[in-house]
Parts: sequence; structure tokens; C-alpha cells
Amino acid sequence: MPDKVLLILQVLYANAHPSMSHMSPDFASVFGDCICMTRQILYSEDAQPFLIAGSGTLGWDQVSANLVEPGENALVLHSGYFADSFVDCLQTYGANVDQVKAPIGDSVKESDVETALKSKKYKVVTVTHVDTSTGVLSNIKGVAEVARRVSPDTLVVVDGVCSVASEEIRMDDWGIDIVITASQKGLGTPPGLSILVASQRAMKVFQNRKTPITSYYASWKKWLPIMRAYEKNSAAYFATPPVNLIYAYHTSLRQIVQGPISLEDRFKAHKNASRRVKDAAAALGLRCVPLSEDVSANGMTAIYFPDGLAASDIIARLLKKDVVVAGGLHASIKEKYFRIGHMGATAVDIERGDIDRVITALNEALAEAKASKA
Amino acid sequence: MPDKVLLILQVLYANAHPSMSHMSPDFASVFGDCICMTRQILYSEDAQPFLIAGSGTLGWDQVSANLVEPGENALVLHSGYFADSFVDCLQTYGANVDQVKAPIGDSVKESDVETALKSKKYKVVTVTHVDTSTGVLSNIKGVAEVARRVSPDTLVVVDGVCSVASEEIRMDDWGIDIVITASQKGLGTPPGLSILVASQRAMKVFQNRKTPITSYYASWKKWLPIMRAYEKNSAAYFATPPVNLIYAYHTSLRQIVQGPISLEDRFKAHKNASRRVKDAAAALGLRCVPLSEDVSANGMTAIYFPDGLAASDIIARLLKKDVVVAGGLHASIKEKYFRIGHMGATAVDIERGDIDRVITALNEALAEAKASKA
Repeated sequence: MPDKVLLILQVLYANAHPSMSHMSPDFASVFGDCICMTRQILYSEDAQPFLIAGSGTLGWDQVSANLVEPGENALVLHSGYFADSFVDCLQTYGANVDQVKAPIGDSVKESDVETALKSKKYKVVTVTHVDTSTGVLSNIKGVAEVARRVSPDTLVVVDGVCSVASEEIRMDDWGIDIVITASQKGLGTPPGLSILVASQRAMKVFQNRKTPITSYYASWKKWLPIMRAYEKNSAAYFATPPVNLIYAYHTSLRQIVQGPISLEDRFKAHKNASRRVKDAAAALGLRCVPLSEDVSANGMTAIYFPDGLAASDIIARLLKKDVVVAGGLHASIKEKYFRIGHMGATAVDIERGDIDRVITALNEALAEAKASKA
Repeated sequence: MPDKVLLILQVLYANAHPSMSHMSPDFASVFGDCICMTRQILYSEDAQPFLIAGSGTLGWDQVSANLVEPGENALVLHSGYFADSFVDCLQTYGANVDQVKAPIGDSVKESDVETALKSKKYKVVTVTHVDTSTGVLSNIKGVAEVARRVSPDTLVVVDGVCSVASEEIRMDDWGIDIVITASQKGLGTPPGLSILVASQRAMKVFQNRKTPITSYYASWKKWLPIMRAYEKNSAAYFATPPVNLIYAYHTSLRQIVQGPISLEDRFKAHKNASRRVKDAAAALGLRCVPLSEDVSANGMTAIYFPDGLAASDIIARLLKKDVVVAGGLHASIKEKYFRIGHMGATAVDIERGDIDRVITALNEALAEAKASKA
């Protein structure tokens, strides 16, 4: 069996680990390692990871229920579908939310962020690093720089569900307070684990909150002692962790952090893969949803269908060639585009040949679709 | 490989299912089956299951955020540790909580439930079916009968984390509105799935609530259309489901619902296994935490250490004999007892010989511990 296939099987095999007690010393040490390696991926020395059974969405609840007190202001930078949902979540927990909206295919300009942050006192500013609905990449380093300069008390919250481990994120150097993510994208683990990392600055804001925390399951007051105990390789109980998934996450983290290539080379590999897919699309005369290279994600590509063709012409043909792509998600353009994921093993393990296969399939599917309309 | 070992491996193997898109038709149909089979296990025709990535704890948030509006009254029947936590959760979401507390080792008397329900209008009454901290079994059929008779508008909420699939629960016949559970106990699946089933009566109360729902991730407004879509074998998106775990749950549900023995025989098997463990403890002169047989769970046994012996004398010795038991959990008696789980395959698959092994190990460990003190 080729080594590259083996890497993914190792993760799945770990997910089939015979169930262990979440209170056992063996599991405690695996959980502890996961906490440390999660921090490493975000280049942080002292931020506090929270690993909780749940979807990525649960990270929004954690921010809304632990950091933003009812009646406080939140600023949401809107670059696609996921900002709307984050707004909904923040409002559920009583925040007053303002938005700065970018046109479809663009990220919010830093000058607009600066204007907004100067206009009002915001507890948090949120930015979707890669919006899965549009493939738009936001400059989170730039957003954090603006926030630190013009509104130093505002916490910078990055939704990194679609970016962690495929785009560079340097929490400490860039001054980012919260990174929200999930197990199933760049981190290459089955879905079911909500991963959130909070800076010590954010933890101080949390410790100083005046009003009660507005969630039970997502309460950091409950989870912080648990995460601290497990990091010291000692078990503690609030709610049962997803034991098997933690084993799988551990295996995947070790491949990323201690694997044959460095984190830096991993990000380069994602850029290379992305460049190849986007060049191939351009050569076919296809237009991407992101308006420029600066705002294009490296772990996925969102492409408009050419005139006269639709999802039914392209997606099914790609599927027949064993290439699974996703349809549109952004409400305003839902029927007009499709999305190709190229993160994790697909981007990093060049010998798999995934990118070649995707490009060939795309060429063939497009030719066939056009021929069928001729 | 013996068939009985194979059954558990099948579940773990399903957990290693290569990751599928949660939007794929194959997955949608597996998810749909899980929804239907979950209903079957609770003998309900039309109750609404919610299967969400999370721990069992998330079920408390679902009840507190969707059914109880801020300022409404909740009555918690206290038979151990988990009632305290449910109180904490209900209060987090703004409920006024009253408790009726049973002495340690007992469940709340139905006459006390009746008095409490007559004293005030309660939106919900909650009862822990089996409190994992004490091994106490509550008579949920009796509690529901009292509620229906003296306070018909009060919703009956059963915390069944430690009872579903090891104790009989007939939602429709008994008039139970909510059953909360998790994947990892009687349902024999790895942890990470919050399972909640709501009667149509509860769903009507939910639909008629006046104030906004107080959670985002646990909001039934978000999840109801998703569960309805998947039940029709059609995918829908709110937050990514734990795909692999749903495959594992599917495998386990099929073993329970369509396996060689009926649900009724499964409950009988748990009673037999329990009887054997409790008789063996009695023969050794050991006292159980539950005060009588009526209030003793069938999927676990909580046993006091004999005078002069402690956790360090017994638990480590059992572990050396490959029998993993848990220490105490109820704060008032934490150091004084231990807990043996005997649910799922251990109780049902007699050929495994688990119960014999546990009883032999307990006899030996006790003799060795006593000898070491002599």
C-alpha cells in the first residue's frame, strides 16, 4: 500500500480505536498532546485551546456566550454566507451586531474596518478567514493590525473553519485573539470536534465578564479546568469527550506537526495546488468567484459555470470521473458556480496525483458538456 | 473470529468509514435510518429525534433553551449528581428551578412528586432515569403518570443517558415528552453524539414559545428542518454532522433493532446480568448504594467498599484482572463506593462471559485485599 494512502488510513484506523474510558491515563495523555499540538499549528505559545464534541458552529456559540455580554457591540466583517450565520448566533446571545459587507467575491477593505472600529466601541470584530461559500480569503493579519492600532480593546475573532492548517495563521505575532475551527477540513480528521483557541488576552476578558455566561454546554467556566487538567495529562469530567475522534485527531495532528514536511512547506504546497487549479480554470476560460488573487483561498476554488452550462452539466460529469465537488452555497449566486476542495492530503501529498486528476476531469467534463449542447 | 466480538468490531469499523460528504445521498439515507430506528428504541410512533454532534450534556441545553422560557418554573427530581448539573443548566438559561431531593440511594417518591406538581405551575419536570453516580433507577412511568394526572401541561423530561437501550422506555404509552441520551452507553457507539427525542406535544410547546430561543447551536428552529430533510433521505445543512459516528450509530442501531434478539429480550438480559452481579455482591457481604431492588438500575451496579477497604484496594486489583470499573462520583460518598457497568454487549451477549469474569474478579480482588490487610 502506498505510504500516502496509509496516512489517511492511519487517521481512520485511530477513529476505530476500541473505546477507552475518557478517565483513563492513556487517553488523558493523548488528549493533552492534542491540546499542545493544536497550539503549535497556530504558532502560539500560550493560547488556550478548547476541544469539545460538536460541529465548527459550536465555536460561534462559545464566542457569543463567553466573550460578548448581552447588549455589547460586535462587528462582523462579511465576505459570504458564514458571516450571516455568525451574526445570527451573536444576536441569539444578545449582542448588538453591525456588519461591514464586501461585494460578492471580495473581502472587506482594511480602510472600511478602520472606519467602523473608530465609529463605536466593539467588544469583538469577527472575520471569516476563508468563506467556504465564496472561496474568498480575508487578510486576517491586516484586520488584526488595524484593530490593535485603532481599537486595542477589541478582540479579533477569526473563523478559521475552512483555513486552519491550509492557510498560515500566526496568532501571537499577528495579535489574533480567537481562532475557531473544526476537525474535518485542513486538519484532516472526521467531523465532530469543535476546536477553538483563545489568546490569554481573550481569557482575561472572559475572566472579567460582569454578567453570567449564557450557555451551559459551551461555557468556558466549565471547560477551562477540564482542558487544564488534560494538558497536565490528568483526566477530568464535565461532559464526555469524543474519545475515538480525539485519537483520530491526535494521529492527524502528529502527521501535520511531526510529519515529513514543515508547517511552512504545508502552506506552500496548498498555494501550489491552488495555483494549478486556478490556472487550469483560467486556461479553460472560466472565472473564479473571488475577484482577485489577493482574496483567493488556497485550500479551495469557487468557479462560475460558463455561459449556458449549469450544475447538472458539470457536477454529475465530474462525479462520474470520481471527482466530488460541491455546488453553490451563497444565496445570491447559488445556481451559478461550484466549489472544488484541495486541502490537506490532496494538496500536500503530490504523489497522490489528486490535482492532476481534478484538472483532467474538469477539462473533460467541460468539453463533454459543451459537446452535448452543440 | 467469534460472532459476538465481530458485532462490536462492526461498529468500530463503521466509525472508520472513509469520510463521506454529509450532503451525499448515501449518507442522507443512513442518517434517515438512524432517525427512524432511534424512535423505535423508545417505542414511539411520531416523536421527533434530534441527532447532533455533542456530548449527552448538550441534551440539557436543548431542553433549557428550546422548551423552558426565561422566568418559567422547572421541577428537578434529584436522585444523584446529574440532577445538580441539570439544575445548573436550566438556571443558566433563566429557569426558576425547584428540586425534590431523595436521600442518597433512593429515588423521589411519587407522592412527593404529586405534592410538588400541585404546589406550582411547572413547565417541565425532569427525572434522571438512571443516575450514573448512584446507580439509582427512577420510576419514570410512575412520574409521568402523576404529571399527566395532576399537572397535564407539564412536560415530562427523562435524562436517559445511562438508561436508553438498557432499561425499557415507552415514550408514547407512558406519556413521556423528552428523552435525552448519548451514543456511548446502552447504544454501544463511540461518544460524540447527543441524542434527544421529543414528543409531538413537546414540539407544539416549542412551536408556541413566546420568547426567542436562547441558544444557537442547540436551537431546534435550526435543527428541525435538517432532521426532517434527512428523515426523507435528503441532505440539508445547518452544521456538519459527525458523519463517521452516524455510520457507527447506524451499525449499532441495526444490531439492536434488527439483531437476533428483540428489544424486550434485551431488557430482560440486562435484568439477568444485573441480578447476577448484585447477588454476587450480596453473597460477598457488600452493600449497594441503591436502597432497594425497586430503585436499582439494570445496566450498572454501585457498591460500597467493605469496612477497612478503599478504592486503592479494590479498583487497581480489578484492573490487573482486566476488569475496568469506575470510582465514586456522588460528592457526599465519593471515596466510599465504586461502580460496575454491565450494559450493551456485556449484558446481552452471554457467550462473551463478561459477567462471569466480573464476578470472579470481584471475589478474587476482595479476598486479596482482605488478605493484604490481615
